[in-house]
Amino acid sequence: MAAPKADPAKTVGKLVASPAFKTAVAKLDADYDRTVADIITLTEIPAPPFKEEKRAKAYLEMLKAHGLTNVEMDAEGNVMGVRPGTATKGAGPFVVIAAHLDTVFPEGTDVKVRREGAKLMAPGIGDDTRALATLLAYVRAMDAAGIKTKKDILFVGNVGEEGPGDLRGVRHLFNKGPYKGRISAFFSMDGANPEHIVDQGTGSKRYRVTFSGPGGHSYGAFGIVNPMAAMAKAVTDLYAVEPPKKPKTTYSASVTGGGTSVNSIPHDVFMEFDMRSESAAELAKLDQTLIGILDKAVASENAARSTRAGVVTYQAKVIGERPAGATPETAEISVLTQAAVTALGYKPSREASSTDANIPMSLGIPALTIGAGFLGGRAHALDEWIDIEKAPTVKGMSVGLAALLAVAGAD
Amino acid sequence: MAAPKADPAKTVGKLVASPAFKTAVAKLDADYDRTVADIITLTEIPAPPFKEEKRAKAYLEMLKAHGLTNVEMDAEGNVMGVRPGTATKGAGPFVVIAAHLDTVFPEGTDVKVRREGAKLMAPGIGDDTRALATLLAYVRAMDAAGIKTKKDILFVGNVGEEGPGDLRGVRHLFNKGPYKGRISAFFSMDGANPEHIVDQGTGSKRYRVTFSGPGGHSYGAFGIVNPMAAMAKAVTDLYAVEPPKKPKTTYSASVTGGGTSVNSIPHDVFMEFDMRSESAAELAKLDQTLIGILDKAVASENAARSTRAGVVTYQAKVIGERPAGATPETAEISVLTQAAVTALGYKPSREASSTDANIPMSLGIPALTIGAGFLGGRAHALDEWIDIEKAPTVKGMSVGLAALLAVAGAD
Repeated sequence: MAAPKADPAKTVGKLVASPAFKTAVAKLDADYDRTVADIITLTEIPAPPFKEEKRAKAYLEMLKAHGLTNVEMDAEGNVMGVRPGTATKGAGPFVVIAAHLDTVFPEGTDVKVRREGAKLMAPGIGDDTRALATLLAYVRAMDAAGIKTKKDILFVGNVGEEGPGDLRGVRHLFNKGPYKGRISAFFSMDGANPEHIVDQGTGSKRYRVTFSGPGGHSYGAFGIVNPMAAMAKAVTDLYAVEPPKKPKTTYSASVTGGGTSVNSIPHDVFMEFDMRSESAAELAKLDQTLIGILDKAVASENAARSTRAGVVTYQAKVIGERPAGATPETAEISVLTQAAVTALGYKPSREASSTDANIPMSLGIPALTIGAGFLGGRAHALDEWIDIEKAPTVKGMSVGLAALLAVAGAD
Repeated sequence: MAAPKADPAKTVGKLVASPAFKTAVAKLDADYDRTVADIITLTEIPAPPFKEEKRAKAYLEMLKAHGLTNVEMDAEGNVMGVRPGTATKGAGPFVVIAAHLDTVFPEGTDVKVRREGAKLMAPGIGDDTRALATLLAYVRAMDAAGIKTKKDILFVGNVGEEGPGDLRGVRHLFNKGPYKGRISAFFSMDGANPEHIVDQGTGSKRYRVTFSGPGGHSYGAFGIVNPMAAMAKAVTDLYAVEPPKKPKTTYSASVTGGGTSVNSIPHDVFMEFDMRSESAAELAKLDQTLIGILDKAVASENAARSTRAGVVTYQAKVIGERPAGATPETAEISVLTQAAVTALGYKPSREASSTDANIPMSLGIPALTIGAGFLGGRAHALDEWIDIEKAPTVKGMSVGLAALLAVAGAD
């Protein structure tokens, strides 16, 4: 993570001004209809969480057709292929550029793409299908311009970025898959805006906490412990916690349910609880506070009312965990990516978010999440859209290409 | 409600020992197969809450066939008919004996009666269909024995006793129907055990309380008010309330729900809250305490967190209200009914429950709920059953007949 030796602005300026880069961008432009066609093809293959396989297989074939080597699907369902560098010749370490295959939309969602002027609309089209097609366009552009990189580049279409997937694809890539321990830098291409550089990975931990008790008739069994009273005390105590504003740390009691009828003391009630922090340490601290509060709430309920029919207990099930992390502003990947944004006429903006880059960030591996093009909106909504106006989109796409080439070292 | 002039034990002893009463009981016995057939016929006509009409119409025809006068269905759906007395000749006031038409079971429940030895099993068969058939058996028995009563008797099959019905049938009978202000004593026949005399009507009030707020992203909008925090404070404060043990007063936070996703501060959450008391005054006091706690919980949440996106509010919707009441142990109806239980060889047991008799009790009209026969169980369950062994059942049935005749004054 040492700062690069050469002046990064100069390095990137030289790269962007090179005839090869101009040829590559010209190819992005010349090939643009194909990129749009790929976006549509991939968007119209549904890829709900945990059901990305069909789209993954299609993308695998596309990676093969683009001449990458070692094209494969790993055990988690990620698909990937290598564009070997001149220095490491496919032996690694690898610079990864990834886009996620999954969408938030359940099976049965109509994913037919509609066109309205310069807008394409369909669930998942911007988040993150456009990026999948953009990665392919990069391969074609580099090939057309005869660009070789020093380092090996691994192109990845990964599973499990969205909510319930809990970053399982990238987690596998770094912790278990064939590239474990062999990745030196990581880009996730996710979102639209080419100015946004996510270098802070907001960590999160999510629980479903179920409080259980003996239950009974509301009148006949009055006086026995009630799991809803224990849950209420827990929420009340949690909402007295004041987490730090910096690093930003938050929580939310978000979803609740339980009980069977108004005239019954419930057997079970639950709440879902979300915690996030820019700091792994603060997140861990909040997590400990939560567990302490849950313990105390249950003990307090068992002390306050009769346990003759049984006690109240709780079970806290982790339903999501995204490690916090950050890539320093001074890291080579950060410096070069900011320089690429600037060199192409944009104003870089550092962002905090929870993305696939959280995983490498939490492992201390240089990682950023960057935008795939130009404009888009309504992510996670049925009327999700992207703007495909050619000139600004190709310009936006060129940012990622410049950052990738700068980090992988254009030869 | 003055005590009767004559010694009630003597009066009832004389009644039970009379040849006419013996003839009537002999008719209950001789006619028993018909009573069982009526139980089966009525049980197999589904009568979910608010959908009692088909069964009500069938019962109306049965009341007509039994020679009652002024047989009618009132505006609420209760069906009824008069057996005029010798003194009042149908002009009233009336002694009412009622059984409820409704069951707790939803539409589509299989209500086919199965027989296992001396047991008949079907949803609703004991609660309260057997009592409907028992009322008809009483008419036949009185007719067979030539028994006239001094007072008019109104036989009623009423709607809306179970949970969501909230006693709407009997409420209408006393507050709006054609017999409003004309009922001097009320029996509800509900339950099996001939020893049980419900003379205390547990009152209840039930709320669905919805807490609403602006909602927002769990991370982005952290710091704004959360309706779940307000609800938790309300439940916590409610569970610090210690209601009196005598008169027994209870509460229960029973059902909860709300929220859409773990990463969203919820817009709406709700809880259902049940309150009961043997005392109308204590119930009203608890109700006031609840409202105070809800007000305070919402105010406290709006003070504790930002209301920049909106405030938290609550709406408390009454989803059930059964007035508390009691019939004094010294009331004529109580004294005579206890004497009838004793005269027939049982040991009377005074009970508190929430039944159709709550309504007249709350109005100061002498009222009891009594059993319809012998054994039964699993009320409100799909395997509900009654025991129809003839001898003990006929004996159990004779208790209600004796009580009714004692109160209506056998001529």
